[in-house]
Amino acid sequence: MSEQSQQDGPASGGAPTSFEDVYAVNTELVRAVEAALVDNQGAVVRELLAPLRPAEIAHIVVVLGREDRRRLVITLGDDLDVETLIDLEGPVLADLLAVMSPHAVARAIPELDTDEAVHLLKEMDDARREQVLARVPTPDRTAVLEGLSFPEDSAGRLMQRDLIAVPAYWSVGQVIDYCRDTVELPDEFYEIFVIDPRYRPIGQVALNRLMRTRRPVLMREIMEAEATTIPVDMDQEEVAFLFQQYRLASAPVIDADGRLVGVITFDDAAAVLEDEAEEDLMRLSGVSSETDFLDTALRTTRTRASWLLLNLGTAILASLVIAVFEGTIEQIVALAVLMPIVASMGGNAGTQTLTVAVRALATRELTAANAMRIVGKEVVVGSLNGALFAVLVGLVAAYWFSAPALGVVIAIAMVINMVVAGLAGTMIPLGLARAGIDPAVAATVFLTAVTDVVGFFVFLGLAALFLL
Amino acid sequence: MSEQSQQDGPASGGAPTSFEDVYAVNTELVRAVEAALVDNQGAVVRELLAPLRPAEIAHIVVVLGREDRRRLVITLGDDLDVETLIDLEGPVLADLLAVMSPHAVARAIPELDTDEAVHLLKEMDDARREQVLARVPTPDRTAVLEGLSFPEDSAGRLMQRDLIAVPAYWSVGQVIDYCRDTVELPDEFYEIFVIDPRYRPIGQVALNRLMRTRRPVLMREIMEAEATTIPVDMDQEEVAFLFQQYRLASAPVIDADGRLVGVITFDDAAAVLEDEAEEDLMRLSGVSSETDFLDTALRTTRTRASWLLLNLGTAILASLVIAVFEGTIEQIVALAVLMPIVASMGGNAGTQTLTVAVRALATRELTAANAMRIVGKEVVVGSLNGALFAVLVGLVAAYWFSAPALGVVIAIAMVINMVVAGLAGTMIPLGLARAGIDPAVAATVFLTAVTDVVGFFVFLGLAALFLL
Repeated sequence: MSEQSQQDGPASGGAPTSFEDVYAVNTELVRAVEAALVDNQGAVVRELLAPLRPAEIAHIVVVLGREDRRRLVITLGDDLDVETLIDLEGPVLADLLAVMSPHAVARAIPELDTDEAVHLLKEMDDARREQVLARVPTPDRTAVLEGLSFPEDSAGRLMQRDLIAVPAYWSVGQVIDYCRDTVELPDEFYEIFVIDPRYRPIGQVALNRLMRTRRPVLMREIMEAEATTIPVDMDQEEVAFLFQQYRLASAPVIDADGRLVGVITFDDAAAVLEDEAEEDLMRLSGVSSETDFLDTALRTTRTRASWLLLNLGTAILASLVIAVFEGTIEQIVALAVLMPIVASMGGNAGTQTLTVAVRALATRELTAANAMRIVGKEVVVGSLNGALFAVLVGLVAAYWFSAPALGVVIAIAMVINMVVAGLAGTMIPLGLARAGIDPAVAATVFLTAVTDVVGFFVFLGLAALFLL
Repeated sequence: MSEQSQQDGPASGGAPTSFEDVYAVNTELVRAVEAALVDNQGAVVRELLAPLRPAEIAHIVVVLGREDRRRLVITLGDDLDVETLIDLEGPVLADLLAVMSPHAVARAIPELDTDEAVHLLKEMDDARREQVLARVPTPDRTAVLEGLSFPEDSAGRLMQRDLIAVPAYWSVGQVIDYCRDTVELPDEFYEIFVIDPRYRPIGQVALNRLMRTRRPVLMREIMEAEATTIPVDMDQEEVAFLFQQYRLASAPVIDADGRLVGVITFDDAAAVLEDEAEEDLMRLSGVSSETDFLDTALRTTRTRASWLLLNLGTAILASLVIAVFEGTIEQIVALAVLMPIVASMGGNAGTQTLTVAVRALATRELTAANAMRIVGKEVVVGSLNGALFAVLVGLVAAYWFSAPALGVVIAIAMVINMVVAGLAGTMIPLGLARAGIDPAVAATVFLTAVTDVVGFFVFLGLAALFLL
């Protein structure tokens, strides 16, 4: 143990000076855990993990292979801190839950916030969830079932039920005494909510505000009345946007009658925000889920295949365009050599525009109010870069094949395709968004279809017209 | 005003039921502001913006065109809330700061947290920054200059200087009295830091913990001693990672001697986390900055051109490979029709793998400890999807050109290219990361170079060998 604790952090005298001093997980530790698991040395595994925090153990679980991951859970048994589970998701979480006994999971539920318990239970199949819930005490079971009843991506799923709500006529002193006398408080909280007699939030007081106010002052006098209130069925991306805009630590959630039903905290919102950015990235690259990386090879193959199939359709469409000009290519084989350049440059310029537009839509920087201005700008950018690269490619082609006319043809095709790329790169995501479709999902396929077809058609068509 | 405030939110009786009830900015409002700015109706602009929060005004500023944006700042003049500025960045912020007088900016500095003031000043050129700083009171100027002295992406840049630190022998009652008596407290805080006589943090107490503890209890007895401490020169991505892992509300920052010098809060960390995900997305698509969207057409053209130039190099390389087989294509023109399919499918499969690997590296789910297992998995996925699409494309090609041998050739080329795509999609980012280069930056160019060259070479080469 003494050697281990020296490795884990700075010696008691020295302050941390690097990331490695602060964060315990590293390749050596993972390899040591792996080795101990393979050798079935449970005591060594426990000793290695003992100094770690739950989030660090969760990180090790993610990095381990599937078999080792299961072995770890079996080895730790009841000693596995449930806080470890809430930092996991998707296939990894499902893996662990499948190995754990319903009893062990059930025992954990009351210790968790509602949103965390819901996060665990939604990864289970119905039968297993029943088994677990049957073992959970009634009040917790009710809270969890209610949590599960909210739509998947809604505020209701993000919120926890535990919160502190007091009437406006309470004094600061009363609130502080209440907190001191009440055992069942939330684990973490950042604001005290002020409610009217019908349990509707009418304001809130940040803890630091409470701290610096004298005891006789009434909550009514110091509460922030204009606080942001989240309807329980609001989409989680909208929730995350509001947290980011207003830099909220927490926000009250209300039901359709305006009654306070829960609270969402900054960490939940931050996770949504990051997931959203990651989702855009994945979708633009044709990966359907963020957990793809940790999924099995077979499931990954299947989910990625659907995108590749779509892409095959696009590629065949482009081939059909080329096939129209088979005769032309037969006579000027240089066209076959050069045509991928036109398509590729258009595709890349279009992807740049598309990516920027998709992100700007997600962050609400691109809206109906400035859409036309942005489309205009992208067309200008496309024209300018089109002109620049037209000259460059035209010269390369003319020199390479000693054919000035060929250089002119490819230059014209390049300008046209890059302007089209700028147009398509903005219009496609705007159109998808207006149609209520996530602009990231199918945008790249559409875009490549456009830039490939236009690229091949214009280049080969112009060649057929002017070079034969 | 009365009409406006009805539009802005729910009537006093009704609770918000949708995002639009909670968030004031929408297309109509932006258009109304635009119209008022163009007509030079300052009073109308002020009236429209009066009910909005700073973050909402910042959002409108972003959506407005460049000219309107400047007009808005000139119209609002000294009434522009400086809190509006801290939500802006890059070219938009630089635009506004250029229009504002040094006096107006200087007056704002003392009202801001250190990290916010630094955020504003780093967008100015040296001469202007001098002008502003000359007008800032000495203590604030010193804090800001110190903030600016930290490296761009370090913890020192993220932190604010204002914090509450108390000795371990203080009682809860003393701390609360101190907070009540001290006027100059930070705007927001979530933890009280406990320090030793040399001002080194030895623990911290969350405000909610403080709130529920009785007055005579000593800080020493309730402080969390194992709290995460951030060295001032830690990279901001590492800081953000720790905040996410440990779900921190705030964390103390220490200098090389271990002394407490500042505090980082969750909102700063969340912003870094999101920027990081966005940066990966942009870089993979060949866009160099997140502010690209709001930049001028000319600057956007220039920054995107460098990526397109790189891509042109890749495209020409691929063309050189095709040129080797000009003779083969002249004899079998179907090869020119089909060859983009092989390259395109390889490129897409590779991009899927690449994107997943880049993100997994960023979130530390992909490490040296599991690299080989993940590469292996991606090769398996590539082989499986390769086999699947080989059969599909082989049948299409054989049927289309009534040439079974051509079908076999394209099928084999497809399998090879998709396995190579899986390998390259993981090995390239891993190699770049090991070399200390951001794996997102150049990965796509390398990948496309590989899948294009291999795709064209294998397909045309096999055709030359077996079909002539």
